[in-house]
Amino acid sequence: MKFFRTFSWFACVVTLGALLALGTQAFAETDPLPSWNDGPSKQAILTFVKETTTEGSPKFVSPAERIAVFDNDGCLWPENPVPFQVAFALDSLKQMAEQKPELRRDPMVRAALVGDFAKLLEGSHHEGLMHILGLTHAGMTTDEFKARVEDWLITARHPRYGKPYDQLTYEPMQEVLSYLRANGFKTFIVSGGGADFMRVWSERVYGIPPEQVVGSAGRTKYELRANGPVLIKTMDYLFVDDKKGKPVGIHQFIGRRPIACFGNSDGDKAMLEYTTIQNPRPSLGVIIHHTDGEREYAYDAKTKSTGKLVKALEEAAQRGWTVVDMKNDWKVIFPFDK
Amino acid sequence: MKFFRTFSWFACVVTLGALLALGTQAFAETDPLPSWNDGPSKQAILTFVKETTTEGSPKFVSPAERIAVFDNDGCLWPENPVPFQVAFALDSLKQMAEQKPELRRDPMVRAALVGDFAKLLEGSHHEGLMHILGLTHAGMTTDEFKARVEDWLITARHPRYGKPYDQLTYEPMQEVLSYLRANGFKTFIVSGGGADFMRVWSERVYGIPPEQVVGSAGRTKYELRANGPVLIKTMDYLFVDDKKGKPVGIHQFIGRRPIACFGNSDGDKAMLEYTTIQNPRPSLGVIIHHTDGEREYAYDAKTKSTGKLVKALEEAAQRGWTVVDMKNDWKVIFPFDK
Repeated sequence: MKFFRTFSWFACVVTLGALLALGTQAFAETDPLPSWNDGPSKQAILTFVKETTTEGSPKFVSPAERIAVFDNDGCLWPENPVPFQVAFALDSLKQMAEQKPELRRDPMVRAALVGDFAKLLEGSHHEGLMHILGLTHAGMTTDEFKARVEDWLITARHPRYGKPYDQLTYEPMQEVLSYLRANGFKTFIVSGGGADFMRVWSERVYGIPPEQVVGSAGRTKYELRANGPVLIKTMDYLFVDDKKGKPVGIHQFIGRRPIACFGNSDGDKAMLEYTTIQNPRPSLGVIIHHTDGEREYAYDAKTKSTGKLVKALEEAAQRGWTVVDMKNDWKVIFPFDK
Repeated sequence: MKFFRTFSWFACVVTLGALLALGTQAFAETDPLPSWNDGPSKQAILTFVKETTTEGSPKFVSPAERIAVFDNDGCLWPENPVPFQVAFALDSLKQMAEQKPELRRDPMVRAALVGDFAKLLEGSHHEGLMHILGLTHAGMTTDEFKARVEDWLITARHPRYGKPYDQLTYEPMQEVLSYLRANGFKTFIVSGGGADFMRVWSERVYGIPPEQVVGSAGRTKYELRANGPVLIKTMDYLFVDDKKGKPVGIHQFIGRRPIACFGNSDGDKAMLEYTTIQNPRPSLGVIIHHTDGEREYAYDAKTKSTGKLVKALEEAAQRGWTVVDMKNDWKVIFPFDK
């Protein structure tokens, strides 16, 4: 009996040890990007993360400097048939016009309600669109705006996929976000979209907290009311976090140069440059190229206005930016495809 | 021999166990705020942290929402005889005037160089001071500005304490920063000072990374130059992160209401309100009251302009804000006093 007890104790330890060893090995071999097909894009991401996080590697970067920035529309979720925030603005406008029919006297409101985007985009500053954004995104408290966005996410459905918009994130990019964070990177959204719009759901949907969301914004106005302090949304001092505004936003909000940047259009070209050109640290630039007309939308090979190749894609080889071919690099597009 | 080996192994385990137990207990009883005298201020901070971080406590707050904001000048380090950034601006101006003597033709530069602050502060928008800030804080790249601040911190000395300015942080507040972080709080600076100025040293000096520094700032301008991308500092779209601007800055940069706020003047009153009034979560508001003319400066009981009690102090009791009496609550002021 004593021998047996000793033996069983010994066997337990050995078994436990073996299991632990196997577990570690299994863990080490788990693919952090299972929705990505093998190929140069996946390899570029894996190699970069390994090199910058392995102590003693010549490309090692201290955790504090592991800043990764992501565009949102067209990079973490689709931007078709219209950017999702535009869909939100139009739905809001419809709701507002029902409550206040006199709004329909406004020619830009009428244009928006019948989907006449050409009219909204007239003029060098897209005055019509800005007017609609002003109506739907200003003149209310930040809490009221947040409640509207939350309500819209529950009720609205994407016209093609029939799902709530916040279920349409790209599964392969969700994997990249998790993989980077598991390796000590701090992940930020840097998007032309509204900061207040994205922050409502970014933590729940991407695991990115509000304080790591950089976006377009007007300056709010503080008031201490009888029932507590409020911030009123305005369009004043509007900051447009797009194109050359993206490095400006990165400096303003983050205060250091990222070492990894994921974008998908010329709106992201400046932040790709800022991340990768003459950066004293190793860096990674990635462009999500929309090549999959079957599962998603194929639209970004040429710019609408000039018909020429998108500049960011044109310069990608010269700059060393990795171009992700959605059709061939991604096994699935959305989480529900799995 | 065998008995002895067994015994000594047994003794080792027991001793180790006893040491571990003692160590744990010693750790549990270590005072996280050793530079604070016992009293209601210290107790208010300890109680708040315990209540908001103990699972099952009715006041428990999830780690993601544990946002703590700190003013900098007069809260984490002194603001006398002039705010340290003003000292930096004047030293910079002297240096610039040596290199470009024609600058002395400018009447505001002359006023600054002879210390005529009254002239600089004339007018409702302090045009003279803004002009000096423009000369010393704009028209250069962010990297050039950073190098100037770094150089100044090495060479300049505080006129009273004879130390580099970045050695003059308040030891009791450093303890609060560490204590909050050890309890899952994210610590942010929310200061009227320049974001670019503070971010140069905030991580090294306070353990607060640049992306958690909210401050005043003009909008930079992005350029891709032959030797790489740069951001040029301007005074355009200036955001002044002071008074009612502080809740605005908190919303813009952090995107959620803090649950703890430390300030020291009417410049912090709005963010104290925003943190503590009708906050759906438990909250803590603290005012550092400068009562110690011997070891530091006693100056904030009354406002210079009206001679009346500072409003934030006047309202403290009604609002439930904790007032820290530096003279009586703090055992030491600076790290070198220990």
